[in-house]
Amino acid sequence: MHISIIGTGNLGYHLTRAFAKGGHKLTIWNHSLEKAQLTANDTGANICLNLSALPKSVDICFICVNEEALPEVLSQIPSHQFCLVHTAGSLSINILENFAKQYGVFYPLQSFLFNKPIDYSNIPVFIEASDYQTLHKLEVLAQFHFGKAIHLDSDKRALLHIAAVFSSNFTNAMCLLAEQILEENSLDFDYLRPLIQETLSRIQKLRPHQTLTGPAARKSNLIIQKHLTILKNHPFRYEIYNLISNFIKQQNLKP
Amino acid sequence: MHISIIGTGNLGYHLTRAFAKGGHKLTIWNHSLEKAQLTANDTGANICLNLSALPKSVDICFICVNEEALPEVLSQIPSHQFCLVHTAGSLSINILENFAKQYGVFYPLQSFLFNKPIDYSNIPVFIEASDYQTLHKLEVLAQFHFGKAIHLDSDKRALLHIAAVFSSNFTNAMCLLAEQILEENSLDFDYLRPLIQETLSRIQKLRPHQTLTGPAARKSNLIIQKHLTILKNHPFRYEIYNLISNFIKQQNLKP
Repeated sequence: MHISIIGTGNLGYHLTRAFAKGGHKLTIWNHSLEKAQLTANDTGANICLNLSALPKSVDICFICVNEEALPEVLSQIPSHQFCLVHTAGSLSINILENFAKQYGVFYPLQSFLFNKPIDYSNIPVFIEASDYQTLHKLEVLAQFHFGKAIHLDSDKRALLHIAAVFSSNFTNAMCLLAEQILEENSLDFDYLRPLIQETLSRIQKLRPHQTLTGPAARKSNLIIQKHLTILKNHPFRYEIYNLISNFIKQQNLKP
Repeated sequence: MHISIIGTGNLGYHLTRAFAKGGHKLTIWNHSLEKAQLTANDTGANICLNLSALPKSVDICFICVNEEALPEVLSQIPSHQFCLVHTAGSLSINILENFAKQYGVFYPLQSFLFNKPIDYSNIPVFIEASDYQTLHKLEVLAQFHFGKAIHLDSDKRALLHIAAVFSSNFTNAMCLLAEQILEENSLDFDYLRPLIQETLSRIQKLRPHQTLTGPAARKSNLIIQKHLTILKNHPFRYEIYNLISNFIKQQNLKP
């Protein structure tokens, strides 16, 4: 298949890599040529310099640019010539209907970092399409190059994306807050690694509601107040600590 | 050594287990006899029914009750008869000075669940003591039964505890929010597990500030606003999403 990847940031880079392993012909575009070049070097993909000159032989075109850049990119792709697929968790499939006869969504539920290898084989991909032919195409690509294909409509996919933000981006932000506190006080971040390992490995076996511990879970206001006093000169830390502790305290946990 | 563990909740249970493996004589107390019995069954420890009757042969007494219950427990232990050690991350060593001639702090930096096995050998233990003899005793116990012993004063230990709350209790809370969103919408929590696994494994190799991704990291206000609109009827979700996104956005990240 001749596949085009528009936008070779974190996701586009890995989509190109995953499809390259399957021997597809690949044409990539990126607003910065330098980053397109890095992706081409790793995958053997051809670089397209101008979206209006995307080869007509492209069977399917994956758009992996930031949500904000999408309208501009869509306006440059020759209208109705390609099967267009976007990869954004929270955008409706309908945003493509004026730009293609056949279109769809291909949302791999994973967090990608440019250039950092990752195992594609257990990543679930959530797909949606304008027609059965496109749906089948996406299903085959997801099953062959990733973990599995799951049909999901745009509204549910947005909820799934929100859940992903909480469980990945925001867990990372919590660790960032910890890192900053330790760093400012000359304490080694490595001290926390066994704790973080245990916390997240529990969630691989149990559910988060079964594994809440800590001052807020045991409703220890003495410690919560002490921590808030220590954090009082750091508004973000103070407010985040306070808000999440209140959230945990109103859960119905066994004592 | 004859070791007493006062309070056999999540931490006390595991402290008893870890010391039992080393062949120490163990005497435990818990406000609910039933939970003391569960710990005794797993470890061969003797149960003490009344704190005022704690055997005089006890060499060192670890207090593992909730911070709120500590004053009551301390008032019941025969004053100045034992070397007393508390295990709370955020309480000063000084709270013990009126209750013992020799005293200290023994803070294993890990999150424990009652009855759930865990590898003790890589857990760092932060220790502090009133005198060299007690410090040495705690150091040996930490090194022999856990990962390593690190001397840390009470102020820094409180900061370390706050960092632990962020990176463990609050990461778990983020996953709980995700779980609740998925559950209400009949989406399977298992979908998130590869993502959570990847998030975690990155933090074992990189630092959190190197691994931020998602709508807030790429300053995608379009998606953030869309998510906030979806969350608007859930005050905790809305406020937590908004606050943490703002925190991430004001980080100095490379685009």
